Amino acid sequence: MTGYTATVTVRLKHGVLDPEAETTARALERLGFELEALRSADRFEIDIDADDADEAADRAGEMAERLLANPTIHDYDVEVVERE
Amino acid sequence: MTGYTATVTVRLKHGVLDPEAETTARALERLGFELEALRSADRFEIDIDADDADEAADRAGEMAERLLANPTIHDYDVEVVERE
Repeated sequence: MTGYTATVTVRLKHGVLDPEAETTARALERLGFELEALRSADRFEIDIDADDADEAADRAGEMAERLLANPTIHDYDVEVVERE
Repeated sequence: MTGYTATVTVRLKHGVLDPEAETTARALERLGFELEALRSADRFEIDIDADDADEAADRAGEMAERLLANPTIHDYDVEVVERE
């Protein structure tokens, strides 16, 4: 067993309205910042012990499917690195 | 001017309690997943037009300082890539 950290990034699908990001973008503009667009996402860093990186990625992907992401409105991606 | 996307990741500082992450970790365990730890973070992807990547990173860092992160409880990091 090796220790891995799987990072699951959960984003709204293209076309799904994101009022929180909209509000954040407007607030930055009111502070004088110039920006073209802003998207927000949730990021989960999960420490998993697994036999190899593929197994860790599979388990993190299943966690995303079952709980972390809502497949109707979210896309997600998984990255795995070995933990020090 | 070139188009860049700056990704600002905002994390709770080490030692700051994260009840949402705690709840998510327990929910995953109730679903039968094994994990050692779970940390959550906010991720902002900001499209910025700037003269170079350093300027884009500086502006994104300033956005984090002024609005996206609360320096009392958050750490943040900024990554910049050129936008296609």
